[in-house]
Amino acid sequence: MSHEKKTIAIVGGSGYAGGEFLRLALGHPHLEVTQVTSERSAGLPVSLVHPNLRGVTNLKFRKAAELGEADIVVLALPHNSAAKRIAEFEARGRVIVDLSADFRLKDPEVYRAVYGEAHPAPEKLGEWVYGNPELRREELRGATRIACAGCFATSVILALYPLLKLGVLLPKDIVATGLVGSSAAGASASDASHHPERAGSLRVYKPVGHRHTAEAQQELPGHFPLHLSAISTPRVRGILTTVQAWVPDGWSDKDVWTAYREVYGAEPFIRIVKAARGIHRYPDPMLLDGTNFCDLGFEMDMDTGRVVLMSAIDNLVKGTAGHAIQSLNIAHGWDETAGLGFLGLHPA
Amino acid sequence: MSHEKKTIAIVGGSGYAGGEFLRLALGHPHLEVTQVTSERSAGLPVSLVHPNLRGVTNLKFRKAAELGEADIVVLALPHNSAAKRIAEFEARGRVIVDLSADFRLKDPEVYRAVYGEAHPAPEKLGEWVYGNPELRREELRGATRIACAGCFATSVILALYPLLKLGVLLPKDIVATGLVGSSAAGASASDASHHPERAGSLRVYKPVGHRHTAEAQQELPGHFPLHLSAISTPRVRGILTTVQAWVPDGWSDKDVWTAYREVYGAEPFIRIVKAARGIHRYPDPMLLDGTNFCDLGFEMDMDTGRVVLMSAIDNLVKGTAGHAIQSLNIAHGWDETAGLGFLGLHPA
Amino acid sequence: MSHEKKTIAIVGGSGYAGGEFLRLALGHPHLEVTQVTSERSAGLPVSLVHPNLRGVTNLKFRKAAELGEADIVVLALPHNSAAKRIAEFEARGRVIVDLSADFRLKDPEVYRAVYGEAHPAPEKLGEWVYGNPELRREELRGATRIACAGCFATSVILALYPLLKLGVLLPKDIVATGLVGSSAAGASASDASHHPERAGSLRVYKPVGHRHTAEAQQELPGHFPLHLSAISTPRVRGILTTVQAWVPDGWSDKDVWTAYREVYGAEPFIRIVKAARGIHRYPDPMLLDGTNFCDLGFEMDMDTGRVVLMSAIDNLVKGTAGHAIQSLNIAHGWDETAGLGFLGLHPA
Amino acid sequence: MSHEKKTIAIVGGSGYAGGEFLRLALGHPHLEVTQVTSERSAGLPVSLVHPNLRGVTNLKFRKAAELGEADIVVLALPHNSAAKRIAEFEARGRVIVDLSADFRLKDPEVYRAVYGEAHPAPEKLGEWVYGNPELRREELRGATRIACAGCFATSVILALYPLLKLGVLLPKDIVATGLVGSSAAGASASDASHHPERAGSLRVYKPVGHRHTAEAQQELPGHFPLHLSAISTPRVRGILTTVQAWVPDGWSDKDVWTAYREVYGAEPFIRIVKAARGIHRYPDPMLLDGTNFCDLGFEMDMDTGRVVLMSAIDNLVKGTAGHAIQSLNIAHGWDETAGLGFLGLHPA
Repeated sequence: MSHEKKTIAIVGGSGYAGGEFLRLALGHPHLEVTQVTSERSAGLPVSLVHPNLRGVTNLKFRKAAELGEADIVVLALPHNSAAKRIAEFEARGRVIVDLSADFRLKDPEVYRAVYGEAHPAPEKLGEWVYGNPELRREELRGATRIACAGCFATSVILALYPLLKLGVLLPKDIVATGLVGSSAAGASASDASHHPERAGSLRVYKPVGHRHTAEAQQELPGHFPLHLSAISTPRVRGILTTVQAWVPDGWSDKDVWTAYREVYGAEPFIRIVKAARGIHRYPDPMLLDGTNFCDLGFEMDMDTGRVVLMSAIDNLVKGTAGHAIQSLNIAHGWDETAGLGFLGLHPA
Repeated sequence: MSHEKKTIAIVGGSGYAGGEFLRLALGHPHLEVTQVTSERSAGLPVSLVHPNLRGVTNLKFRKAAELGEADIVVLALPHNSAAKRIAEFEARGRVIVDLSADFRLKDPEVYRAVYGEAHPAPEKLGEWVYGNPELRREELRGATRIACAGCFATSVILALYPLLKLGVLLPKDIVATGLVGSSAAGASASDASHHPERAGSLRVYKPVGHRHTAEAQQELPGHFPLHLSAISTPRVRGILTTVQAWVPDGWSDKDVWTAYREVYGAEPFIRIVKAARGIHRYPDPMLLDGTNFCDLGFEMDMDTGRVVLMSAIDNLVKGTAGHAIQSLNIAHGWDETAGLGFLGLHPA
Repeated sequence: MSHEKKTIAIVGGSGYAGGEFLRLALGHPHLEVTQVTSERSAGLPVSLVHPNLRGVTNLKFRKAAELGEADIVVLALPHNSAAKRIAEFEARGRVIVDLSADFRLKDPEVYRAVYGEAHPAPEKLGEWVYGNPELRREELRGATRIACAGCFATSVILALYPLLKLGVLLPKDIVATGLVGSSAAGASASDASHHPERAGSLRVYKPVGHRHTAEAQQELPGHFPLHLSAISTPRVRGILTTVQAWVPDGWSDKDVWTAYREVYGAEPFIRIVKAARGIHRYPDPMLLDGTNFCDLGFEMDMDTGRVVLMSAIDNLVKGTAGHAIQSLNIAHGWDETAGLGFLGLHPA
Repeated sequence: MSHEKKTIAIVGGSGYAGGEFLRLALGHPHLEVTQVTSERSAGLPVSLVHPNLRGVTNLKFRKAAELGEADIVVLALPHNSAAKRIAEFEARGRVIVDLSADFRLKDPEVYRAVYGEAHPAPEKLGEWVYGNPELRREELRGATRIACAGCFATSVILALYPLLKLGVLLPKDIVATGLVGSSAAGASASDASHHPERAGSLRVYKPVGHRHTAEAQQELPGHFPLHLSAISTPRVRGILTTVQAWVPDGWSDKDVWTAYREVYGAEPFIRIVKAARGIHRYPDPMLLDGTNFCDLGFEMDMDTGRVVLMSAIDNLVKGTAGHAIQSLNIAHGWDETAGLGFLGLHPA
């Protein structure tokens, strides 16, 4: 491992995913951001769009057409944009990280069903590793194509993975309800995101048909009916997901603990949160803004065999830019936690 | 129907349920509030505790021991307080309305299982009508004992009732997830309600074992496994409940519409909210603060037969004081909407 | 006074001011809304834009070009739109109420200085009454042209009026700082109103040069230097204004009380809020959403002669649509509080 | 400078100031937290009270009576507690940092006037350096007694210091209005901090008589009448202060810029925020949660000579624990920014 920094270019850096990646990369010991593109804001300082970076960097946006070479190219483009221009980006850097959904699904037919059109580069799908460190750590080592997991999908996958890996869930319908912050809808203003219409809202925006269902089903072991519903909350960041699943007769809290510990015991960014006292007994996204943690909790209903799994993440960090950094750390053999040291605030 | 007003006494008027009942009763054409009790605030003006009533009323709190007679006595006491002293209150008025859980369950054994102790007055349980106007309108006419439905129970019951009444749901697990405002936990400060700990929180507070499960199962037709989870949100008022249920093959949106319309077509406070355009397409408690509406919506997943039912209410109005007023209106033969005319705000 | 209702047409009813006027007018005993215009939403139900009105009215938007006659025409247009087309509207109704700033200033030169262009109809300025019931009640009786006061101006004027009317303030700089909800910026989405950028923001948006300075100086008695600063808060509705002014040596709380009572003692919508106990000791817009109250408070610094005046209103009600209704009530000789009975919520 | 870490003990670590200091110290390259005390939570893991530290530290609270030695002792006690027991703490460590108000004021008579009782250790007041790095950097070098500046005082002082140091303000009344988050009132729950009473509130809590007035007057150069008002906002963290002051005829923005740059040009944590475009044109505490920045802005009213100064900080960081760390960095000759690298979030 060299102490020389890797240069990194961020394509589409004026959105929230790109901006968050930029924030993390600026504090990363092995990364040096040399280029950030934005069609709309080309020529402007990045700190005009991301005011948290005032006085921190002098970088300016350029147009993607002016993209030069870099060791690592990070694509933070709208869905279905990266795949169409992938050859262009591959010519600029050896390692490509895509934050969109374009290269997550392995099967182009599933892609077509979910995203409503043919995949622009189906022959390349096999080259990409799904950027979920907890499930794909070995494949990520040395990887040069990383397709970062979706934020809601990540919260569902990390909650369910241990129980499905161990094969203990009953073959019944699994229902996952995600409470999602407004930043997940991106940086573009709309009538629906107008503050007076949105500030106090609890808005079901995807009761059925959420696209991340396919991702979660691809990555999770076994076959089972998985149902997702997504609701907007007044928070800006964060996802709290509750998953309703069913365990065999006789199962108790202890068994779920054991399963989680067995699978996640060594994970640097997974915490099991299930406190018997205090006021913060289960995962809460309030505590995770800016951090790469995924907090997981659970509770059993002994009478019915129902287990309620809970997961909380910051959608822009563990749900997007943070696990991109974590994946890059693994790919390059760096300390897996490099650049991800922020602990979160209390109170927040 | 006489034009003379009925006198009303509110026992436990310093809490949020009692305060909301007081607000509504002060604007009611047939009610005259003559007494409000509070042990803690006896002697103080009610407007010191409920500052929205400044300049509106000169009522002062008195102790319950000083309770005089009234046509109607409304009990807004903590759970398990009203039943222990019910004879005392029955001596004061002909009509008793209880806002607590004490007289909702018909079966004292269920009460014991849910509330952890024997019911103090099991012989009286049969006298009470469950105060849900949509289900119990006929029984409410002339009723003198009204046990107002619980807030989360109401949101679950009103969402499910049409489909269960018509017997069309598949016999699979029904999962209801309630997003609840902080006022539902009452007016007493605690570490958990301290603003810095609570303001940005999404806190699962009852993943399993919610007591309103028994109420909902008692009132809803048929036998089926019902699972409730409750989550606190940063809102002060309001409940948004999503219910995951399962309909037969071939069912479509239209069938659910038909069922809802058939059962609720004439209801003054039920609105079906399912818009094809605009930014407010489904029920949202943001729009219901202060109103007695229950907004209902739904969405079908045609591939799996899953239907997601959605209901939104103000927990203190349609969930508590509002349906108490609506029940009283029915009981006395008044216009069912009397005193409940507030439309809600937009923006809010 | 006839019991027949007056017909009313709202021009520009898709914005927040027009929507709030519509809500209030629908519940008014002497008003019948017969027309609502919106260029953008013509043909759509008003409840699609104002979802609080679902099930309450079947009114649809029409284009202003299709405006028919009505007893009263309410103009809820952007600033500088109403004046340009005033003849068109005068042809439709006998009474015109303008919610914009177009007819508030008496002096066309002041208008030009403040709004940056010549007034389109300076010859008509003298016909209009400034729609502030507390200052202009006598002029409002029988008025047919009512120019409703600005929201921030109202909060400043009502706080200062008693002390200036009585001539007791020292001739020093008066500083008024307004904390304003996001609805004051209107219903159009923008980058600045995008929820993730705005939800947690405290944003100084007009530190100097606020246009309502001219209104306040026109209406308030005496000559004095008045300085306004305006700050956006995370609330949707409401303005809390603190005014820093200076009283003579020896003044105490009691003198300010006396002044407020002398001037506002009979006002139906002014409340003096200055409690020695409890947690709601001063005016707070939290308690006023949807109401027409202006709550006023104050505190003296005996050492320096500084008095801090505080006023709270709902910018869309007492700041716009509510005092329009109140002014109409006065103009027609109706009960001044008709249609304005909502008390506000606690908790809220 | 040795690479060995200094041991640090935090007395009163269960409150928000102590908890924030703990968070920052855990990430500091030259500090090792070895002890944290809390009378109420003795024996419990610190992460039970500060859940952001879950999995990050195994420290447990102990009672203050069990306090051992440490290189640095940080006192995070309620006001008027540290001074009474100062000898006890001086026996434990060479360097003492006090986060309370006990040792900020130099003059015991001023202390008595402001805090209402005699100072418990007036003979020691001269030993303490006021912990404001921008004003007292030279005195802080090698300091062993650091009395950290108050949060509101800091926001006022940093806004005014350049203009007062350069002696350019007119001798008129200066008015500072602070908008303060709920965390400033501390970690103890109360009726006033109960979420339903506080969530949407704009509450003037100190219109006159704020204790930080004395601090600001002591530290700022010159004699001038300074008036503070403090208002609670729905935010948890952060202070936005606007200061109304008066400059000579002919002054323009450029002159204020020059003054700020001259005084603060080399400051690592001061940023001048005054953008001609974009949506974040002035200081906003939204962008500063968790950071040690003080963002400063200003706007001139050329007609009146009024200048509105604006400052934003995180009350718990630059207002408390952050400038304590910054002061310690200076005292020990470490990099002044050590442990203070968090940039803040966007969106936030």
